[in-house]
Amino acid sequence: MILSGMGGATVRAALSAVLGILVIAGCDCSQRYTYEIKEFQVPLDHFSFLINETFNIRYLYNDSFVDKSNDRTPIFFYTGNEGDIELFAQNTGFLWEQAERQRALVIFAEHRYYGKSLPFGSSTFNTSMPEHLAYFTVEQALEDYAMLITFLRNDRQLPVVAFGGSYGGMLAAWFRMKYPHLVAGALAASAPILQFSGITDCDIFYKIVTSVFENAYNKNCSANIAKSWKLFETLGASEAGKKQISDAFHLCNALKTDEDLKKFLNYVEEVYTNLAMVNYPYNSSFLAPLPAYPVRQVCYYLKELQTTDASLLHAMSSALAVYTNYTQSAKCLDISVNSNADESGWDIQSCNQMVMPICSNSSETMFRTSSWNFKDYAEKCYKNYRLTPKPYDIILRYGGRNLEATSNIIFSNGLLDPWSGGGVLQTPNDKVFVIILPEGAHHLDLRHTDPADPPSVRDARDKEAAIIARWIQDF
Amino acid sequence: MILSGMGGATVRAALSAVLGILVIAGCDCSQRYTYEIKEFQVPLDHFSFLINETFNIRYLYNDSFVDKSNDRTPIFFYTGNEGDIELFAQNTGFLWEQAERQRALVIFAEHRYYGKSLPFGSSTFNTSMPEHLAYFTVEQALEDYAMLITFLRNDRQLPVVAFGGSYGGMLAAWFRMKYPHLVAGALAASAPILQFSGITDCDIFYKIVTSVFENAYNKNCSANIAKSWKLFETLGASEAGKKQISDAFHLCNALKTDEDLKKFLNYVEEVYTNLAMVNYPYNSSFLAPLPAYPVRQVCYYLKELQTTDASLLHAMSSALAVYTNYTQSAKCLDISVNSNADESGWDIQSCNQMVMPICSNSSETMFRTSSWNFKDYAEKCYKNYRLTPKPYDIILRYGGRNLEATSNIIFSNGLLDPWSGGGVLQTPNDKVFVIILPEGAHHLDLRHTDPADPPSVRDARDKEAAIIARWIQDF
Repeated sequence: MILSGMGGATVRAALSAVLGILVIAGCDCSQRYTYEIKEFQVPLDHFSFLINETFNIRYLYNDSFVDKSNDRTPIFFYTGNEGDIELFAQNTGFLWEQAERQRALVIFAEHRYYGKSLPFGSSTFNTSMPEHLAYFTVEQALEDYAMLITFLRNDRQLPVVAFGGSYGGMLAAWFRMKYPHLVAGALAASAPILQFSGITDCDIFYKIVTSVFENAYNKNCSANIAKSWKLFETLGASEAGKKQISDAFHLCNALKTDEDLKKFLNYVEEVYTNLAMVNYPYNSSFLAPLPAYPVRQVCYYLKELQTTDASLLHAMSSALAVYTNYTQSAKCLDISVNSNADESGWDIQSCNQMVMPICSNSSETMFRTSSWNFKDYAEKCYKNYRLTPKPYDIILRYGGRNLEATSNIIFSNGLLDPWSGGGVLQTPNDKVFVIILPEGAHHLDLRHTDPADPPSVRDARDKEAAIIARWIQDF
Repeated sequence: MILSGMGGATVRAALSAVLGILVIAGCDCSQRYTYEIKEFQVPLDHFSFLINETFNIRYLYNDSFVDKSNDRTPIFFYTGNEGDIELFAQNTGFLWEQAERQRALVIFAEHRYYGKSLPFGSSTFNTSMPEHLAYFTVEQALEDYAMLITFLRNDRQLPVVAFGGSYGGMLAAWFRMKYPHLVAGALAASAPILQFSGITDCDIFYKIVTSVFENAYNKNCSANIAKSWKLFETLGASEAGKKQISDAFHLCNALKTDEDLKKFLNYVEEVYTNLAMVNYPYNSSFLAPLPAYPVRQVCYYLKELQTTDASLLHAMSSALAVYTNYTQSAKCLDISVNSNADESGWDIQSCNQMVMPICSNSSETMFRTSSWNFKDYAEKCYKNYRLTPKPYDIILRYGGRNLEATSNIIFSNGLLDPWSGGGVLQTPNDKVFVIILPEGAHHLDLRHTDPADPPSVRDARDKEAAIIARWIQDF
């Protein structure tokens, strides 16, 4: 999940954090894993008898591991989240590895309103038709998955295990809570189901990002970043200063207005949070092509405490390029690139149910101070989408911190992941498993096995595999 | 619940059984229990972001038992079913008795679209506005209750226990399944959550009714009834025969057409099923004013095997009057009386989600043979309400017989209750309690304590009270 790109500095930070992982709208995922792409018809509205319209969601299907003689074939079902489902298929190696081991049918289901699962085709997000957004909810998506699983089981008693990371992990957990008759268990990796109003402090996210930067190389890294906001603002107040920033960062479009400056600062902020999330121990290209431990690389460029404006600007620019131009293929930095079609999907969800308060305090973090202001937030939502957010919907339905009656869910969290602040870190009972990865970034455990994996992620995967095997066996 | 009054003989029997308890539309319930009547605003549609309309549901409120010094006051919450909530308040004495014992707040919540909780006021059921029926679903009603409980708890950690009988019991059970964070447990009395397509044989209902009549006095009772259908049909074929029936039963409106005859036969059939349901051990007036063990009374009039048409007619008429005119205040028998406003509410639910297949085989029951024909059923639903029933909605959402992950529900069933055939009679795990009342009719255990209660119902209530007390204590 990335942070929502809806507003200006304060409001933006105040806006619900986007769990978005998707910076790549059209997925050009390298095909490590293969599958058939299928479609499944679902009702547009599962919960009223007003309309009978339907549309198709996509799902990926691979039965190459299945033992055809087994009449209890497990189904490993990825509860798709905010983006093209192919992206998740390529970045969830653990599911594939375990499917091979358990001889499971592999399914990746695409979330309605993402990828090619658009209920109203090309007019789905047409702002003159806000009614098209009415059915873009968690409950409708879960019901899509329930119907698809029922179809796939085809009256057979098959053990289904739900998998998901980030928002997909939230969906996997909620799916097990609400449809335990359809899934034997769920692996909810880096699923911040507690990052909602009134049950988690809004400043935890940026505190964790800061801590990641503080510990990546040396403390000067976060100190330089903390200093930079003031510099950007001072410089940005003048035309000459805007040019100085634009030149230093090789911006494709030079900063002209204060609005441009705001966008630039938001962009930079988002880069830091993204870096913390995908601070994986090996080269990866989930949010962007990146080296191993990218935060360490970034902080390498910021290891000296910079004392002049020019040297700080220069160091910041080199640091940022780790994220923005690791392949060295970009001639200039296009700060509009982080916004894409799928991010707008998440923006919409953060304007109906997924209201996840985020704020920061500059005295405790390397970020600017920003407050959580629901009123401003709601106004933006109404202005942009004609949506009135319901900030307590999720707690009302899924129970907030009250998870005593829950069973057969693994909540895994990497402590280096800023979303772990809203994750389930304490088990409510002996049927819910909490797995902590001290050295883990955002759902690292869901990724394929890699020789560079730290021991804690290997341990976590071993534990997860054993629990999943037990669910299948006990079914 | 009573059987739906939608169609003619075959189709009617084939139609979903109405769990309806309500023959009295406007509740003139004698005020054994008192309460304030309050209102609570709920969204018309909880699950889409299409409309922002709201309306008020009613709830009954009594805090007279509450110990104001207790900051963990239990809430006993009746999940209202198909009818005016005051009727249920007056017929659920067990809740009141336990509330006094546990010093609980008493709440009876009225189900949307019943009583005075009408989303569109007097035009709610206007057949020219079928869109008004769109939000008349189980999930919307449960969500109303979830919001009301959240409001009543007012951020305090209070143990809530859901109570319900019949369809209300189904709601109580489903509520605990889906909102375990809001209710510590649920007493689901006579809740046929398994009476759905493909998971329970459709003929079980009438088999149980027959068994109740067979065992009430002597076997001649059900034999006479079984014979009577043929007689009614033979007589009913001629005008003179129709008159003979009309005279024998003192019908207010003499049978004129074959359609009238059909209605009469349906009425008689419904009386038998209602009698089995409310075969309580003492005088009662839930469905109608009745003596203790009314089936026994009915069968007393049918104890001799009648061999002539005239004597059978006469005996049947006397028997039926036990139900239709126990108070001897009616000058004639009005067979349209069983149909009322609230029954039409249930008809609608049986045409969207509550598709509960019922059929009968005359060789195994005292009833006419009727088959379950979903196609005919669905056509009637569309014709009457523009609704296309979804017969698998309930199983998809609530799991059918797959209840392993469920906890803290008591399923109580009287074996004399025809709905017990679709009830949960085997516990899926040690946190779900199944209580059988061998001598119990339809949710007898929910009623107030009476000296005439058979030992099995006293035992059942003791067990239920102990389990509920434990839920509150463990909270």
